[in-house]
Amino acid sequence: MKTDLLVTGVSQLVTAEGAEAKCGRAMSALKIVSDAAMAITDGRVAWVGEASQWSGEAATTINVGAAAVVPGLIDPHTHAVWAGDRLADFEARAAGATYEQILAAGGGIRSTVKATAAATSEELVALAKPRIAALMRSGATTIEVKSGYGSSMAAEMAMLEAIEVLAEDARMHGGARIVATLLIHLPPTDAAARCGYVEQVCRELIPEVARRELASAVDVFVEREAWRVDEAEEICACAQRHGLGIKLHSDQFHSVGGVELGVRLGALSVDHLEAAGEAQISMLAGSKTIATIVPGVSLHLGIPAAAGRKLIDAGAAVAVGTDLNPGSSPLYSSAAALGLAVRMNGLTAQEALVAGTVNAACAVGLSDRGRLEVGCVADFLVLDSGDWRDLIYRMGTNPVREVWVGGKKVGA
Amino acid sequence: MKTDLLVTGVSQLVTAEGAEAKCGRAMSALKIVSDAAMAITDGRVAWVGEASQWSGEAATTINVGAAAVVPGLIDPHTHAVWAGDRLADFEARAAGATYEQILAAGGGIRSTVKATAAATSEELVALAKPRIAALMRSGATTIEVKSGYGSSMAAEMAMLEAIEVLAEDARMHGGARIVATLLIHLPPTDAAARCGYVEQVCRELIPEVARRELASAVDVFVEREAWRVDEAEEICACAQRHGLGIKLHSDQFHSVGGVELGVRLGALSVDHLEAAGEAQISMLAGSKTIATIVPGVSLHLGIPAAAGRKLIDAGAAVAVGTDLNPGSSPLYSSAAALGLAVRMNGLTAQEALVAGTVNAACAVGLSDRGRLEVGCVADFLVLDSGDWRDLIYRMGTNPVREVWVGGKKVGA
Repeated sequence: MKTDLLVTGVSQLVTAEGAEAKCGRAMSALKIVSDAAMAITDGRVAWVGEASQWSGEAATTINVGAAAVVPGLIDPHTHAVWAGDRLADFEARAAGATYEQILAAGGGIRSTVKATAAATSEELVALAKPRIAALMRSGATTIEVKSGYGSSMAAEMAMLEAIEVLAEDARMHGGARIVATLLIHLPPTDAAARCGYVEQVCRELIPEVARRELASAVDVFVEREAWRVDEAEEICACAQRHGLGIKLHSDQFHSVGGVELGVRLGALSVDHLEAAGEAQISMLAGSKTIATIVPGVSLHLGIPAAAGRKLIDAGAAVAVGTDLNPGSSPLYSSAAALGLAVRMNGLTAQEALVAGTVNAACAVGLSDRGRLEVGCVADFLVLDSGDWRDLIYRMGTNPVREVWVGGKKVGA
Repeated sequence: MKTDLLVTGVSQLVTAEGAEAKCGRAMSALKIVSDAAMAITDGRVAWVGEASQWSGEAATTINVGAAAVVPGLIDPHTHAVWAGDRLADFEARAAGATYEQILAAGGGIRSTVKATAAATSEELVALAKPRIAALMRSGATTIEVKSGYGSSMAAEMAMLEAIEVLAEDARMHGGARIVATLLIHLPPTDAAARCGYVEQVCRELIPEVARRELASAVDVFVEREAWRVDEAEEICACAQRHGLGIKLHSDQFHSVGGVELGVRLGALSVDHLEAAGEAQISMLAGSKTIATIVPGVSLHLGIPAAAGRKLIDAGAAVAVGTDLNPGSSPLYSSAAALGLAVRMNGLTAQEALVAGTVNAACAVGLSDRGRLEVGCVADFLVLDSGDWRDLIYRMGTNPVREVWVGGKKVGA
């Protein structure tokens, strides 16, 4: 076998394994190869195994010096594009202000919507770039980014255009792959305008987004203070007619039927689930929909953490994301999100790695990544340790030494 | 005025202020100077104020480009010297093993003691260096490091000698100042040997440590499974006779009298306090002893967080540390510890900064740092933001762009 690159000196090569891994079920089935090597051709994995078993030729060989290698992380839930800041909210909340008081003082999510709508697409790109770079340094090689801080068709389009520029920039410069999602986040404050907004989303926004391929999925925030199930269903059905995947922000504060809708419609994922109960958990366990949990929100807001342990024990496929956003999760590390999932949601380190790789790939609708198997995209991380568990164990420091995307080292 | 260095372009210069700050009381009295400058001579602050008010001369002027500047952080509680790892414990605990099961399987703190005792002083230094470096990158300019994984006089001395080498190395290379503490951590497992151990600590270890100036304080772990109050009192009294400060690990799992002892003896600090109740809180509020909380432990082990909010509301002076150690707090960021204190212990961002600077300085017995006032050591941080609150707000990313110790930039 002739290959472009051979990666040697790998103390442990760790990956989710088996056919089951592809649909995100086998939550603790990791394959760990000691003293491993990996060959790469045309940006894809060509061979993996014990180094002593390699008998091919490689144009280039690198030795990572007895470091552990894991698949590049996939962050399946971020709102990395926003303008303005929420530092005043952070201060007020720490001083005891309630959510309602913060909103009344002009803060909260509506302030982010206002600032984002006022920014140009170029400004949004400039603001988001260092955030994307931080996630990538922390190990994310594929990053989902949502729109949703627009309060009009034009503002949503501006956000999606900013995400497209970020994605193109990353492609040009060997950065992480960006996956865009159209998020229908907050209804108009005027109740009478809700119906017209849904209609406009379905008649104008979704067709335009699909035509221009500005997003691969549509996400709707189902919550007492956001969209009702019937409204979300109308939007999701439209998205599916246009060939887009669907996702839901669901069961964050109240369980109002989002999980049920997501499972019924075959959503790629339902995300949050802090308020999901036994019924929702068993429904997810019997479905192909990924349960994406976001522990950064629980840490930052002090709300209960999603029942990750129960979800997995019931048989659901769990993914983990940062939910990077200024109001509820200013978490700039995809690796740290996995560490928090162990501490706050009861996952094991093995499960956290599966949740941040192959299951997260399923949650964004990509099956060619999140594993280091022959044919998969050669996105991988060289850790700052010979033991892969340090990726999850160490807190407050970046456990990732090198990030490789498509067989090329980022920043090299 | 002629000075060595002028730091300009400071969007905000933030420091605890006022006479009260020196003894660690004024928990939310921050002074924030916008468009500031700071002059430094002989490694100490010579002038601070609005840039427009500066009229002196400086040999060198640097512009930090509209970044916020805060005092260097002081990490008042770490166990940064250890050998071995606790990854197997981490895995077992996540999989549901109890503390007792882990101990029975040869894990737990006794495994760290065993590995540390088996390491040479040189090995301990080599293992600790990257940990100290990580804390420093996260903003710590003064770091307390404890012995305590020795189970014999010789092993404790080896740890203190390793800490001395680390301190000397940092002095030589412009790193963080290391403050050593002799920790009397775990009693011998043989109950009959306890009495002899205390006697040996008092007769041999403390006098030798004091004579060679290997530590500035002695710390004792007071807990049901560790030392009794009467034993701790004997050790503390001996430490005081030898001119050393005292500290206690207290009220971590049970409130068994450690706070009462610490306050009575005038301890520099009592640390942990997760199990402290109203009586302990009001006792601390009426004392000069610093209440040091360590949120990383609560996050990592899932134990209740210390009542930081109640301590401050009662009038206690709170400090925050990482408690960096392999078993209960693998937290490698002093800045992240402050962020966790807001999320887990109910502090405001202002209080967290005071807790991580001037109050932490008091907890390690140093009054010349933790503030950016004339005469103080010029230890400061240039943040990766124009708003100092990002130091506390951002999670999973290092908010510190430059670390300055004694008026010199680390790594320059």
